[in-house]
Amino acid sequence: MSHAVSIQVQLVRRPSGWPVPEDFRTTEVTYGDLAPGQVRVANAFVSVDPYMRGRMNDVKSYAPPYALGETMTGGAVGRVVETTVEDLPVGTVVLHQHGWRDVAQEDAGTFRAVAEVAGAPLSLHLGILGMTGLTGYVGLTAIARIQPGDTVFVSGAAGAVGTAAGQIARLLGASRVVGSAGSAEKVALLTKRYGYDAALNYRDAPVREQLPALVPGGVDVFFDNVGGDHLEAALDAMNPGGRIALCGAIAGYNSTERTPGPDNLSNAITRGLTLQGFTLGGYGHLAPEFAEHMTGWFADGRIAYDETVVDGIENAVDALLGMMRGENTGKMVVAIGS
Amino acid sequence: MSHAVSIQVQLVRRPSGWPVPEDFRTTEVTYGDLAPGQVRVANAFVSVDPYMRGRMNDVKSYAPPYALGETMTGGAVGRVVETTVEDLPVGTVVLHQHGWRDVAQEDAGTFRAVAEVAGAPLSLHLGILGMTGLTGYVGLTAIARIQPGDTVFVSGAAGAVGTAAGQIARLLGASRVVGSAGSAEKVALLTKRYGYDAALNYRDAPVREQLPALVPGGVDVFFDNVGGDHLEAALDAMNPGGRIALCGAIAGYNSTERTPGPDNLSNAITRGLTLQGFTLGGYGHLAPEFAEHMTGWFADGRIAYDETVVDGIENAVDALLGMMRGENTGKMVVAIGS
Repeated sequence: MSHAVSIQVQLVRRPSGWPVPEDFRTTEVTYGDLAPGQVRVANAFVSVDPYMRGRMNDVKSYAPPYALGETMTGGAVGRVVETTVEDLPVGTVVLHQHGWRDVAQEDAGTFRAVAEVAGAPLSLHLGILGMTGLTGYVGLTAIARIQPGDTVFVSGAAGAVGTAAGQIARLLGASRVVGSAGSAEKVALLTKRYGYDAALNYRDAPVREQLPALVPGGVDVFFDNVGGDHLEAALDAMNPGGRIALCGAIAGYNSTERTPGPDNLSNAITRGLTLQGFTLGGYGHLAPEFAEHMTGWFADGRIAYDETVVDGIENAVDALLGMMRGENTGKMVVAIGS
Repeated sequence: MSHAVSIQVQLVRRPSGWPVPEDFRTTEVTYGDLAPGQVRVANAFVSVDPYMRGRMNDVKSYAPPYALGETMTGGAVGRVVETTVEDLPVGTVVLHQHGWRDVAQEDAGTFRAVAEVAGAPLSLHLGILGMTGLTGYVGLTAIARIQPGDTVFVSGAAGAVGTAAGQIARLLGASRVVGSAGSAEKVALLTKRYGYDAALNYRDAPVREQLPALVPGGVDVFFDNVGGDHLEAALDAMNPGGRIALCGAIAGYNSTERTPGPDNLSNAITRGLTLQGFTLGGYGHLAPEFAEHMTGWFADGRIAYDETVVDGIENAVDALLGMMRGENTGKMVVAIGS
């Protein structure tokens, strides 16, 4: 038993528009000896995710807004370094939601042991093997009800969820997978590394102008991480009966003014489209089914991934902002003590 | 056997914005003797419906656009006056889609005999007992998956589909039904005649300002006939997991400019909302189930209805325009030879 100092990042003010450093503070918490039932975990990686921006606002949602003055919660993976319980011995790899801190000390029930996967760094449990991959899987299956032979369009395709969604779509039988990204390098990555049939750079020309040529047979499933112009372009390209999984709208997360929605939403009526928003809140029951698929695909070498790693918990805010500016390829994570 | 002159209204030009008389022509067609397998029907009532405006445009949709130079198709009800087939004898009441004409002469297979309902004028087979009622039923059940205890908001609630949807929602177990309409008279009708718990006049103040006070527990199901500001207001008021049936967007049907969509569509993500557009095309299989419910409710005196009747097939265009301006209460129909 011993004391431990934990460096933690807290939200202290609700951002207006883009978050700024003054909206956060970095603080030190000193943990005492473990209480019965507690474990102490040294985090290896902490996740930064687009949904976190939404929770900084004080609005009605499935997930409550972040409390001011408390440490930012979110996904993290680490190893047990001290324990009081038998089923989480020292050295166990655990996932948890205690977020932006280098050391977490909490009740054992708030940590979940995960099986290490051969060849996979621990950070993948925050990414393609974890919430990120599950988000792609849930969006395509439970929300968009993907069918073999579907043409699938993914916006923000080079992001963490996007790279997962495109590959999962293919593995679930999509006949054509098309993505969008914000640089020539990312576009090349989509087709060369992630198996996309075609990709567009949304900075080259309006998506509405570029998309039709890439989906000559129309779009059956749209997995939307962006919203805005991407949703508008997709609504024009959807086939009758098409399904749209609304996963993110990063285009509007940091705007202080209300941004108008798609000008062609009435296509949903004439074409019988379904738009369904989701967060993982209601779909945890699909995690075992996803894990079975994904560990098999991963073991077979059928899953490519990239990560963008930022070092040091004190840089978590920068990592989040960089991710929202699109500076990452694949999952953005913060490495601790590496 | 005999010849017959049929007065018919045809679309001759695709409207830009609001249709004008010059977009149509009234013409006389002379039918010869019946060919084997044909029947001749004298229409009693012809339907004018919001979806017709959409089909005047040349756009991708479940339903093909109206052909120029051909008679406007659409729902109509009449009686067989001459026949060549045994199962449709003279006097049979039939429904068909031959539309804006006073006399129809076509293959017997394009007409469907309907059972007359005691106490119901034939026009109701175009309204609450027919497509209009079915639209409300499909939107609430197959699309919005209404549950007992739901709070339901209906836009355009004094229109044909709206009056049906509000009553059906109540009969299917909604605990609170709220509607919008465009005049004080219609608002009064909603609460006094159609069983709405509360109603708002969208001309009094922005819907976004008026709605929250009428739905203190939030909205579970939104049946949208209007789009625009109504959809925006509803998205703000929806409860997590809420379902939106997109049935019509009459607010935008006649605009020549693209109108921006709701500025709060990202609520669909954070609240896990589903927006599903529909037309009746894919839901004909629910007609028998609907008919069983509705004839029972009607016989029990639990269904109120209004109709706005315009006389003469030559006034069909005026009837359509009046309906789109909101001059009708309940179903707008054109009476023939009354």
